Amino acid sequence: MPRLVLIRHGQSAWNLENRFTGWWDVDLTDKGIEEARQAGALMAAKGLDFDLCFTSVQTRAIKTLNLALEAMGRLWLPVEKDWHLNERHYGGLTGLDKAETAAKHGDAQVHIWRRSFDVPPPPMEAGSPYDLSHDRRYAGIDVPRTESLKDTIARVLPYWESRIAPALHAGQRVVISAHGNSLRALVKHLSHIPDDEITGLEIPTGQPIVYELDDSLNALDRYYLSER
Amino acid sequence: MPRLVLIRHGQSAWNLENRFTGWWDVDLTDKGIEEARQAGALMAAKGLDFDLCFTSVQTRAIKTLNLALEAMGRLWLPVEKDWHLNERHYGGLTGLDKAETAAKHGDAQVHIWRRSFDVPPPPMEAGSPYDLSHDRRYAGIDVPRTESLKDTIARVLPYWESRIAPALHAGQRVVISAHGNSLRALVKHLSHIPDDEITGLEIPTGQPIVYELDDSLNALDRYYLSER
Repeated sequence: MPRLVLIRHGQSAWNLENRFTGWWDVDLTDKGIEEARQAGALMAAKGLDFDLCFTSVQTRAIKTLNLALEAMGRLWLPVEKDWHLNERHYGGLTGLDKAETAAKHGDAQVHIWRRSFDVPPPPMEAGSPYDLSHDRRYAGIDVPRTESLKDTIARVLPYWESRIAPALHAGQRVVISAHGNSLRALVKHLSHIPDDEITGLEIPTGQPIVYELDDSLNALDRYYLSER
Repeated sequence: MPRLVLIRHGQSAWNLENRFTGWWDVDLTDKGIEEARQAGALMAAKGLDFDLCFTSVQTRAIKTLNLALEAMGRLWLPVEKDWHLNERHYGGLTGLDKAETAAKHGDAQVHIWRRSFDVPPPPMEAGSPYDLSHDRRYAGIDVPRTESLKDTIARVLPYWESRIAPALHAGQRVVISAHGNSLRALVKHLSHIPDDEITGLEIPTGQPIVYELDDSLNALDRYYLSER
């Protein structure tokens, strides 16, 4: 039976500062590094192993994966890095402190941007210091100027179908190190969570989530590895 | 014009202890970690950049690459890990202290094993604690029981021809993080170094070696980045 493990990256500097991050490439904190190592140690202790790894092109997810694999003695596993697994793009909110944003736009509006399924934040303005459309990491890619969760799902799922699901069908054991919203996209898909519930589902940092799947990749079970 | 950078991994625990390592998966020392970071910082300061990275399936080379890429802000680059870039397999010498080996076999014999082109050390015995033939990293691979430098070259070059040279021909900028003898194989090939000279060519740890190549991948220039 296929098994899939999802890991949200460890704490980042902007998780700690409570700033909207999105595609901005913020590093892990020392706590985030430790979370990643502990995730790997836990997976090794529980006897989990993998054949193929996926991650985004963002440093905090890649480092989380590398640190976890190192703790498992599995740094040699193949890793595919792809922007489709990036965090939701927070548009014009990128870089803003969440309290400041609430003071400026009002709690209700911020709540809508954070928690609605299909309302994107205002687009990032051209010339923003957080504009990544000319970063060579994204050469040839139409970098979004903002994304709703729905938009995020719309680019995560084709990647799931084209790259990850075939590996699982072929019997490969897969781990994905990614972000709160790109993982929400996968959890929504696998666990059939409705639009109005998925936005409230919190995915904790550095906690391996295990999916036991049937041969059609339907979820038979989903649990935090730390709880088994 | 294609450009290629070679990096030998930073100091490992057994480099420090002067033990034959080969395929045994020894980690970097703190000095080795620092060498890797400085290699990345130097490449960034000199304006080098890459499109594709290659490394072995040995922790010390993978970590050297990851640390260097992180120092360059390039952790998101694609990395291909392959056993063909592994260190020469030292057979029955694996794990032995070089002074002890000399005391046991004589300086002249050890010199032959270390410095001859085509004389392999004695094969690793079955049941050796350093036997990796059942390591799942090498599943499906006929793990050598010992290798001469000639044997090492014989498995490095087909990989160069099939994976690395095509990337360079396609205009990709390539960095290879590997080992003393797998890099000797590449330097011998690119710089046309005779059999009896290549065994004496020392490749220092953590020093980026730059090759400027013509369109047929002939070496126009080879230099240590730290000297330019």
